[in-house]
Order: sequence, then C-alpha cells, then structure tokens
Amino acid sequence: MIQLIVVGKLKEKSMQQLSDEYTKRIQPYHRLKITELKDYSNSNKMDAITKEGDSILKSIKDNEYIIILDLKGKDLTSEALSEKIDQIFTNHSSNITFIIGGSMGIDPRVKARANFSWKLSNLTFTHQFARIIALEQIYRSFKILAKEPYHK
Amino acid sequence: MIQLIVVGKLKEKSMQQLSDEYTKRIQPYHRLKITELKDYSNSNKMDAITKEGDSILKSIKDNEYIIILDLKGKDLTSEALSEKIDQIFTNHSSNITFIIGGSMGIDPRVKARANFSWKLSNLTFTHQFARIIALEQIYRSFKILAKEPYHK
Repeated sequence: MIQLIVVGKLKEKSMQQLSDEYTKRIQPYHRLKITELKDYSNSNKMDAITKEGDSILKSIKDNEYIIILDLKGKDLTSEALSEKIDQIFTNHSSNITFIIGGSMGIDPRVKARANFSWKLSNLTFTHQFARIIALEQIYRSFKILAKEPYHK
Repeated sequence: MIQLIVVGKLKEKSMQQLSDEYTKRIQPYHRLKITELKDYSNSNKMDAITKEGDSILKSIKDNEYIIILDLKGKDLTSEALSEKIDQIFTNHSSNITFIIGGSMGIDPRVKARANFSWKLSNLTFTHQFARIIALEQIYRSFKILAKEPYHK
C-alpha cells in the first residue's frame, strides 16, 4: 500500500478536486490511502511541529518505508522515482508512506525515522501544493512502471 | 506586463479553476495575460511543433524578454526567480513572456529566440500541469518581492 500522510485539509476546492482526480487515477495501479492529520499551525511553531510529529509517528508502523518531502532532500527525475518505488516494493517493504509536513516544517523525530528524503524541486511550494505534485508524480511513476503513455 | 503563452485548453476543470485562482491572485501585483494557442498535437510530431512554433512566434514582440520552460534549462529557487523577474523589469524590459510548449516539445526557433530557459524541476510534468506550477511560482515571486508572507 502507498500511504500519503499530510497535515490539514486542502483549502482550495480546486486543489481538493485535483487531489481526488489523481487519487482516482492511481487506484487501478495500487492501493492508496491519504491520511489527513490535524493542522496545529495556529499554535506556536515548536508546539505545532511537535504535535504534528506526534500524530505522524502514531500513523506509521515499523514495517513501512518512509519517504519525507524535504527541501534538503535528494531530487529525483520521474523515472528515478518510479525505479525507487519499484525497488522498495521488491527489496524493502510492501508499504511506502510519503509524509508532507505542515506549513511549520517537519519534526526532527520524523526526519530521523525517514528512510529517504525527497526534494520535489529547488522551488518552494506550499505543503498543500506539494501534496498535488506528489500525487501527480506517484501516478506518473505507475504509468512509467506499466510502460503506458501519459500526456495529460 | 507578464504574458504566459501556452498550447491548448486545460482539460481538467479543477486545473482550470486553479489556474483562474492564481491568475486572480497575481492581478493586484502585476498585469498578467494568458495566451492560449491552438493545440496541434493530433498532427504528426514535427508538424505540431512547427505549427505551434509559428503561432508562438506570432504572439511575441521584439521587446519582450522570453523565458521558456524547458527540461534542459536552468533550475531556480523561488527567491532566485523573484530576483530574476525584478532584474528583468529593471534592466531589460517591462514585458516578460513565459512560454510553455505543447506535449510534443518546443520549436527550435522558439528556443533560439528565448532569453532564458527555466527548468521547473528534474521531475517531468505535463505541459498542462507545468502551467499551474508556473503560475503559482509567478504569484510566489510577487509575494516575495512585496515581502509578504505566503503559506497557503
């Protein structure tokens, strides 16, 4: 299973619809679960990070391969991401969990638990927009692995 | 003025709504015009690229600073993009045109005319999705230049 752990609900209706669209497209290829955790960004920064970190750690199991989205991570081509997903399923775990922290950042305990840190781009995105990009790229990975064209 | 030249209409309604949202957000900072050219992707590949290239070249004037989105371009941080936009307006031209080619690629004549080639990421995106990312980053640039926070 692929799990995507995120913080808070998508505020733009159009983003929610786009998230739903890619979720629907991924389903025929692989089971996908989106876990939306409570957004503590109204608390002070350290509190928010710690509380979100607690919830994230409670949502993952020992056998899951954890990929966090992090501006300090390693960037990948779409082909490299698809190969990585394939190799994890073959060699490590049948459960991959992608984690996108909240607007305040990611708890160091979650970073320490991560098996891989992935940088989407040198550009900065909101955590909400990053969710859409990650879903689109997970969908693209399955299209690449299935050797199917993807233009739209 | 900032112009965004793109090929074809956005197929997903949610993408169109998200494009409209960022367009609306950019307006208070700068005039933005989106020029949607005819999509020739049903023709054969070379024909499509040439016909789209003809339309693109007709849509730009000599005094415009042209930025094409290209996987072989240079990647930028969001801060570097905002500085680039600021420097172009100060030193080169009051008109910046971003060009996103169609699904078949960009005509070599358009590449030759470009002042700068910008790579969004090592990830591959559809030209439709790239449009949303570019708009979001142009909006982010103006927020950075205005020294305003941007979290959502």
